[in-house]
Amino acid sequence: MHWSRTAIDASDDRFRAKFINSLSGFKSANLIGTADTNGNTNLAIVSSVFHIGANPPLIGMIVRPHTVTRDTLENILATGSYTINHVSADIWKQAHQTSARYPKEQSEFEAVGLHEQYIEGTHAPFVKESRLKFALKLAETQTLEINKTVMIIGEITDVIVEPLAVQEDGFIDIELLETVAVSSLDAYHRSHRLGRLSYAKPDVKPDEIG
Amino acid sequence: MHWSRTAIDASDDRFRAKFINSLSGFKSANLIGTADTNGNTNLAIVSSVFHIGANPPLIGMIVRPHTVTRDTLENILATGSYTINHVSADIWKQAHQTSARYPKEQSEFEAVGLHEQYIEGTHAPFVKESRLKFALKLAETQTLEINKTVMIIGEITDVIVEPLAVQEDGFIDIELLETVAVSSLDAYHRSHRLGRLSYAKPDVKPDEIG
Repeated sequence: MHWSRTAIDASDDRFRAKFINSLSGFKSANLIGTADTNGNTNLAIVSSVFHIGANPPLIGMIVRPHTVTRDTLENILATGSYTINHVSADIWKQAHQTSARYPKEQSEFEAVGLHEQYIEGTHAPFVKESRLKFALKLAETQTLEINKTVMIIGEITDVIVEPLAVQEDGFIDIELLETVAVSSLDAYHRSHRLGRLSYAKPDVKPDEIG
Repeated sequence: MHWSRTAIDASDDRFRAKFINSLSGFKSANLIGTADTNGNTNLAIVSSVFHIGANPPLIGMIVRPHTVTRDTLENILATGSYTINHVSADIWKQAHQTSARYPKEQSEFEAVGLHEQYIEGTHAPFVKESRLKFALKLAETQTLEINKTVMIIGEITDVIVEPLAVQEDGFIDIELLETVAVSSLDAYHRSHRLGRLSYAKPDVKPDEIG
């Protein structure tokens, strides 16, 4: 079945949002923890976190400045600090609920029943219930002229992870941690590993490892 | 277990690559199809494709200019055309194998045993075996000063998808299509849906839908 751009543009806004959001494939499910300069906290689910580089360790994400992630963006710009917390299978419904438009003065932590956790040197709160989480220092923000979304790039300063999940070669078994994935706008998934494959070389079949 | 930045920086390069690549969560698994101006084709797996916006339909990806994705980047810059093809469960090993460093004159399609498919008006080849795929017109490229990776933004022109997977509300059931997800550098996963949740509103528990 072939959808032309004309057919896509002719569909209604809600249909198009779900359809186009399905196309990139599985997306990461993360909760962004922030606090304003007075320490009032905010928590927002985003599915747009992506890897940029390992050395230095850099992570990007896309946010819309005038939507429910507005407070997140303001807090990051004001304090330079945020945390990214994997959504584990036992908190997927609370995580989704953070996308409701709560008033600015109400913390999503309290509203959805998740708990704040702090470490020295990081202004922003972690999600206590998350099993893999990391703190970032804002490195760069950029408004993408093409549709006015904002790309935020952060440098990782601290990682908190259950030690059993970290393998000798650096691989973190996020399936063991029950990290979920998102598809389209509103579907959540657990995973089942097909395998790990060795570094690919021409004319050699990759081995399964691990 | 707390990993400080000092501990991360002190780990060896291979460990750090696998460790940091695990942090963003599940990643999309996509094959990027391109051809040079003479029609010589190239195919490369990337896990950095992300959604930017639905209207206009925009997709981003991050590539490293001096690695195995160099030919992909050159072909996109030369022709303005590329395709993004979901990696389905039955081609995950061939998809991984495209990351081997084949000589420029050898097409990864042929090397790994996948087939080209063309539509009118699109220079780049699709992957015939992929069950959800779309064509893009280059909209913007940008070198991220922070680590010299390149962000490529494209506008979707055509979508090819098995009709059974497209639901009435626009949601595409990529689990039905057996699209796989990636974690870290080399792990591939199938999915198991927890559910879909209705649009979140304050003080109302979301319903499961679909």
